[in-house]
Amino acid sequence: MSIVVVGFLAYDTIETPNGHAEDVLGGAASFFSVSACFFAPVSVVAVVGSDFKREHYQIFTDRNIDLRAVAKREGETTRWSGRYHEDLINRDTLELNLNVLEGFKPELLPDQRRSDYIFLAPNDPALHLHVLDQLSSPKIVCADLYDYWIENTRPGLIRELKRIQILLCNDHEARLLSGEHNLVKAARALLALGPTTILVKRGEYGVLLFSRDSTFAVPAYPLEEVVDPTGAGDTFAGGFMGYIARSGKVSQAVLRSAVVYGSVMASFVVESFSLDRLLALSWDDVDNRRRSFLELTDPHHPRWTSQS
Amino acid sequence: MSIVVVGFLAYDTIETPNGHAEDVLGGAASFFSVSACFFAPVSVVAVVGSDFKREHYQIFTDRNIDLRAVAKREGETTRWSGRYHEDLINRDTLELNLNVLEGFKPELLPDQRRSDYIFLAPNDPALHLHVLDQLSSPKIVCADLYDYWIENTRPGLIRELKRIQILLCNDHEARLLSGEHNLVKAARALLALGPTTILVKRGEYGVLLFSRDSTFAVPAYPLEEVVDPTGAGDTFAGGFMGYIARSGKVSQAVLRSAVVYGSVMASFVVESFSLDRLLALSWDDVDNRRRSFLELTDPHHPRWTSQS
Repeated sequence: MSIVVVGFLAYDTIETPNGHAEDVLGGAASFFSVSACFFAPVSVVAVVGSDFKREHYQIFTDRNIDLRAVAKREGETTRWSGRYHEDLINRDTLELNLNVLEGFKPELLPDQRRSDYIFLAPNDPALHLHVLDQLSSPKIVCADLYDYWIENTRPGLIRELKRIQILLCNDHEARLLSGEHNLVKAARALLALGPTTILVKRGEYGVLLFSRDSTFAVPAYPLEEVVDPTGAGDTFAGGFMGYIARSGKVSQAVLRSAVVYGSVMASFVVESFSLDRLLALSWDDVDNRRRSFLELTDPHHPRWTSQS
Repeated sequence: MSIVVVGFLAYDTIETPNGHAEDVLGGAASFFSVSACFFAPVSVVAVVGSDFKREHYQIFTDRNIDLRAVAKREGETTRWSGRYHEDLINRDTLELNLNVLEGFKPELLPDQRRSDYIFLAPNDPALHLHVLDQLSSPKIVCADLYDYWIENTRPGLIRELKRIQILLCNDHEARLLSGEHNLVKAARALLALGPTTILVKRGEYGVLLFSRDSTFAVPAYPLEEVVDPTGAGDTFAGGFMGYIARSGKVSQAVLRSAVVYGSVMASFVVESFSLDRLLALSWDDVDNRRRSFLELTDPHHPRWTSQS
């Protein structure tokens, strides 16, 4: 039931209208693994530089997140720096230094190759295919898109799509890849390319899940203060894949609950910079917000129907 | 249980990426009343010109929509002309001729003044206050915002807000009126101005309902083809107020179901130009789409949980 995530670990420097954080732990694999480990064991495939701090290793090891396949190389860890606009949605990348990530080819350990649940964070489809070639017979491979790779490596991406079950993307990426403006048509076009499930992340507007025979939609949990949206998508993916791995099967009911848990986890991470809120989280916090989330979205919620 | 709507009847000329329609029946009162009449009796307060067509009167009278307070004046009916962008959200107004609406002061009939349910379509707060002064003791007054009136007649609007129960607006208007970018904070600020319920319409992203002690969120019904979004908000309001009037009370459970019915009605109207889809609608259509809508939004929907 353990999940393998192939992604990167990074140090982020972030400015938002509500604050500023420098050289804090980030990268898709960080957010994903700390979120997913609430549900199932997680194993990370990534690379860090010689500057990667002991306290950051410890964040993972404290949570039994397996770092055996995190390569340590001479040089600096990947660094990203960005500034969010007033709307806390749009952002400008001020700097991106891949550093030790340059030329990285992920090699999975023998037990990781036999894993049932794989998450491929956004990266070059060639790298994703290299990982897929190492897997024996995964139940679920979920890959996250990034518009750069749609524009620049479409043939590789199309090959990749035939080999994954769940595709994660945002509105813009779904439209770009399918060539359809309407999201229902876009999702149907993407389903025809291979995946059995398309998940469209819409930020503050929630998530749409498209399968061949069903569509599911949830709003985002409305928050009074968003401090830093960085990592929301990766944290969503962690809760989503974590719940699937914990369930050990993929029915429509499991996918729907997984979307709810993903949304719940994402609603926490944006309340602070970096992983701060996730690291302070208890299972009770998760469970309570899940209840609030269900109350938020259920037109016939017992709390209100019993009064009427 | 009958509803009074104060709004306008108009002829619209519309261009969308999917087609073109000329001088078709429109105006908030048209969409609202034809939507609401599926649930409760409706009475319209409006004005038309001498060019208002017999076949359009008949659309209302065929549905027992009361037109006694629709004044007929010499001159032309209000005309609006607009063009939608590729995204089917943004639009440019090409022309607006108020015509007979110029200087119109709505006068309610004695029985309308005693009505329990009132809908005030977007208009000058002075005109809304003139209507409110005529009402004896309404249970629910719902008013729809429009950004022009926030920018130009804020003092009148603030006075109006103290006298209404439900405020309808979009994201932009909620932010503009409250001065808060965050929607949760914006809604709380608006609740402090008088209304007990704030409904934020977010177009293709759905609706947020804020009350003092509860928040409810629904996505929009995902459609494969949107032909013309004109009237979606008014049609939503019609289903919403219609369901409340039919229920004869306003509990949180009623408000939530009303939001679902409003969303269902809105999902139909955008499938064609003008009122075409609403006019062809049966109660079975409404009920079936409501079932689809609940399946779309329910993480524990029986259709899927029974299989898992």
